[in-house]
Amino acid sequence: MFADPTVTLEPELRERPGMWADAIPGRDEQQALKRKAIVRAAARLMSRRGSHGATLDDVADRLGVSKAALYRYVSNKNDLILACHEEALAIAERCLDHGEEKGATGLEKIRLGLRSYLVEMIRELGVPALILEENVLQGDAAERNYANRDTYEQRMRRLVAEGQRDGSIVQSEPKIAVFMLLGSIHWLAKWYCPDGDWQPEQVADAIVELATRALEPSPAERLSAELHAGAGTGP
Amino acid sequence: MFADPTVTLEPELRERPGMWADAIPGRDEQQALKRKAIVRAAARLMSRRGSHGATLDDVADRLGVSKAALYRYVSNKNDLILACHEEALAIAERCLDHGEEKGATGLEKIRLGLRSYLVEMIRELGVPALILEENVLQGDAAERNYANRDTYEQRMRRLVAEGQRDGSIVQSEPKIAVFMLLGSIHWLAKWYCPDGDWQPEQVADAIVELATRALEPSPAERLSAELHAGAGTGP
Repeated sequence: MFADPTVTLEPELRERPGMWADAIPGRDEQQALKRKAIVRAAARLMSRRGSHGATLDDVADRLGVSKAALYRYVSNKNDLILACHEEALAIAERCLDHGEEKGATGLEKIRLGLRSYLVEMIRELGVPALILEENVLQGDAAERNYANRDTYEQRMRRLVAEGQRDGSIVQSEPKIAVFMLLGSIHWLAKWYCPDGDWQPEQVADAIVELATRALEPSPAERLSAELHAGAGTGP
Repeated sequence: MFADPTVTLEPELRERPGMWADAIPGRDEQQALKRKAIVRAAARLMSRRGSHGATLDDVADRLGVSKAALYRYVSNKNDLILACHEEALAIAERCLDHGEEKGATGLEKIRLGLRSYLVEMIRELGVPALILEENVLQGDAAERNYANRDTYEQRMRRLVAEGQRDGSIVQSEPKIAVFMLLGSIHWLAKWYCPDGDWQPEQVADAIVELATRALEPSPAERLSAELHAGAGTGP
């Protein structure tokens, strides 16, 4: 299982089962998988306790590895936060690729992109990690992170403009429209409970349908997402 | 100016002009005003640097007072964060009072409440402070804060239900609707620059009109907020 000669493991790493949260199925992707396991554990811890409520020790503990093992991948808290943001933005970009491929209009591309982003974020990281304190990042890490985020936001704005040209989106300030959408989905980190009744897909459907409805020139009066359709009109 | 005998001030506090960010016009409201000045300085610092990027020293420095003077009002970082949240929720509740008083329908009450909340938040605190890490709060402070927030969210949900009964709001899951709205307005803390071209009223009008449009059964095709109406349809 640990045949990769570039990876030197402590004895305890070879002996204990269930380490790295059982995220090591193969051989070549070990590094990437470990990094993903770290990001996932960190995002969940930090979203619950705040970024300074989760230490590297907590993350190592959650993963069932030693702090020394963890240090091969991240050297401090900023690394962790940066890794969470990078993973989140990578998911966001990939999902927007999917939206652009499958959607016929600007609005459809945005809907598909946000919907899959939200589902994948919850499944992969537990919460939308971009709400984590990016302002603690410094130097090159901060620059790179802001640049990546800007790239994503600008891509979203171009899709809003595209939707305005193809008639699927109302005339509106694209920057405001994009931030309204991003806020409505990332706020999930403040309230969504992965152990609750609502599945990621149900929540993603309901939020994205409602939020993007704001941009539709003439939206249908009935919402189709399961959570909305099933909601009563009483208190 | 410092006639209140209950307030004992260091010599330097009586001598230096411009202290407490010039927020002390009267005599009886000194305590409240100082607390507000602290909250305002802390919210701005923390929204820019993250909650652990802003120390009590930074806050004291920004206010032009000694750390000892500051310690009379807040004893640690948690106090600061809690004070920001309490101030934000107090503004939110007051603005919803205003909305309930002036609005004719559930939707109008929500619109008026959120619009004035957003304007007042930006003017008073610089940013919507509720996005700050509440998860660092502990014990009684955390309990009180969560209880206050729940009260506000439940009040919002009742207004959504009211709007569904009076026909101003589409059938939708009230919890999802409320979190969508709260996310879209609080995300402002991530991107709004108080020194930029957009005034608080302009931004509040544009975001609240767009976000609440999602809830309207048959929204108008043209948005009326200045920033939207002036936006081109090109890229």
